[in-house]
Amino acid sequence: MPVGTQATVKGIQPRELSEMGASIVLSNTYHLYLRPGDGLVARRGGLHEFMRWPGPLLTDSGGFQVFSLSEMRKIDDEGVTFKSHIDGSLHRFTPEKSIAVQENLGADIIMCFDECPPPTDREYVAESLVRTHAWARRCRNAHKRADQALFGIVQGGVFRDQREFSARIIMELDFPGYAIGGLAVGETKAEMYPVLEWMDDVLPRERPRYLMGVGDPRDLIRGVARGIDLFDCVLPTRLARHGAAFTRDGRINVTNAKYAEDDAPLDAECDCPTCKSFSRAYIRHLLQVGEMLGLTLMSAHNLRFLLNLMAGIRAAIFEHRFTNFATGWLARYERAEGVI
Amino acid sequence: MPVGTQATVKGIQPRELSEMGASIVLSNTYHLYLRPGDGLVARRGGLHEFMRWPGPLLTDSGGFQVFSLSEMRKIDDEGVTFKSHIDGSLHRFTPEKSIAVQENLGADIIMCFDECPPPTDREYVAESLVRTHAWARRCRNAHKRADQALFGIVQGGVFRDQREFSARIIMELDFPGYAIGGLAVGETKAEMYPVLEWMDDVLPRERPRYLMGVGDPRDLIRGVARGIDLFDCVLPTRLARHGAAFTRDGRINVTNAKYAEDDAPLDAECDCPTCKSFSRAYIRHLLQVGEMLGLTLMSAHNLRFLLNLMAGIRAAIFEHRFTNFATGWLARYERAEGVI
Repeated sequence: MPVGTQATVKGIQPRELSEMGASIVLSNTYHLYLRPGDGLVARRGGLHEFMRWPGPLLTDSGGFQVFSLSEMRKIDDEGVTFKSHIDGSLHRFTPEKSIAVQENLGADIIMCFDECPPPTDREYVAESLVRTHAWARRCRNAHKRADQALFGIVQGGVFRDQREFSARIIMELDFPGYAIGGLAVGETKAEMYPVLEWMDDVLPRERPRYLMGVGDPRDLIRGVARGIDLFDCVLPTRLARHGAAFTRDGRINVTNAKYAEDDAPLDAECDCPTCKSFSRAYIRHLLQVGEMLGLTLMSAHNLRFLLNLMAGIRAAIFEHRFTNFATGWLARYERAEGVI
Repeated sequence: MPVGTQATVKGIQPRELSEMGASIVLSNTYHLYLRPGDGLVARRGGLHEFMRWPGPLLTDSGGFQVFSLSEMRKIDDEGVTFKSHIDGSLHRFTPEKSIAVQENLGADIIMCFDECPPPTDREYVAESLVRTHAWARRCRNAHKRADQALFGIVQGGVFRDQREFSARIIMELDFPGYAIGGLAVGETKAEMYPVLEWMDDVLPRERPRYLMGVGDPRDLIRGVARGIDLFDCVLPTRLARHGAAFTRDGRINVTNAKYAEDDAPLDAECDCPTCKSFSRAYIRHLLQVGEMLGLTLMSAHNLRFLLNLMAGIRAAIFEHRFTNFATGWLARYERAEGVI
């Protein structure tokens, strides 16, 4: 899922998202609640209509941003009080409030309000799970819109017993989809992958599984190998801002002087509009002089790269050759033996 | 002519320029000379190829930016020494250098290197004209590329005798097109329009006339009424950055609170992609939160608005109803009696 934090995937128009094969877009409840306000979006006919994205949308619960972006947050069992990172104004999110905001925004998939604890702090994780589970139940009860799917989120840090415990509690609430939250926030890959494997054994196979906040191409492949269906990440657009482009042979940084006179596209094998038309030399120039077209072209490429990868993964799965596909893809991308 | 200062019309892709009906784009020699360098552009196959704009291009001479943007410029009869506004490095432009740079860039229309004096300073204008005329002759001699049209520039401030004198000298050099320079730089409209009228009587009717740096829709109409064929201006994209959109009923500023819940397009009569899809409320949101898509959507609209206006002017001229068209258009735009 490309990320459209503030009701826009940075620099990309909805028609471009369609053309690049985006089938669902994520938007952030915390940001939209603050600006322009979920009530305003609801009065515009909801987020699809507001941002003119006719395809599926997912909103997060706002929890992650409340904990990571806002100032002076105060958590209690009822909810979280926080100061806006924009103007310092005071706000309060509860599970019921998060669901109400997400119902106003009107995405197709919405998420339970949860706490994302430091993943390696065993005691804090245990304490936090009690809240997250109680909040999941309250979200379930608060949610009324029949045209939205409310997904549950499994927490539990990097600890097997806590993850399995969390999965059992959340699954008892019988959500139509399950997310694995609280990862990709500082723990190592060696700590992250086992969590996915434990969850692969526990979560129901017939319901979608969503690994939140993960977007490195290697993690997409390794996540799918561990049973994940859905991902979201700001990486494609954030990398674009830093001049980094995905290629089949790994990342390159186009602002590097060696690309100043390089007439090749970002990735010779890519079929995105950026690569079909523009050279590394031109994109480098745009980035060097701070022209926003540079960000647009880079983001469009990086997004298409990941969407192409996922399409390749899907095809490989259908054709029963996923392991071969994954090993070969990783070996080339990492210029090393690819280990799924 | 939409302005693509740094080899890109800010936030707009070449295919969008084509779709909005742009038939020629202007780019700035001063900026491209500094970054990425005209030699680099030449080695990429020229500016058309570099920026992937297949249509006609015009480059200015760099003179205006040398005088307005650079630091510590020093003019002598040979040329101008100046410090880059980017890194303070020292550079020198002469008529020959400007032509060489423009030949490297490879636009279809290139401009003589001239000085743009304060238009109401009679003595300085007279002194400056001597240089501008000598430089025009040197540009004519230096220019070798047969696939480029070199336009002459008439200067002379707001003074009839000096303008007519300048026109005579420049016309003696027999350029395929003539520009009126040194206007829209601080003088009043009441000072500018007479200059156009004097030039309308003097410049050859069968060659294109280009009023440099003018882009307000009222000035386009009043310029055409005074014989002008070509205009360029950063106004559509600059206004976009300030939240201002052209409409048939005058400018509006979309960041104004009254548009927060306005579901109408920027201009109900506009056929641009922005107006066909997006609401004032959404665009206002994008501008409020600093999302670059806001600038792209606003710029695309403002550019299309001016291109539509010019298309309307051309149709009216062909159908011998220009005066009616112009009067009616201005009356509505200015909500007053339109005076051409």
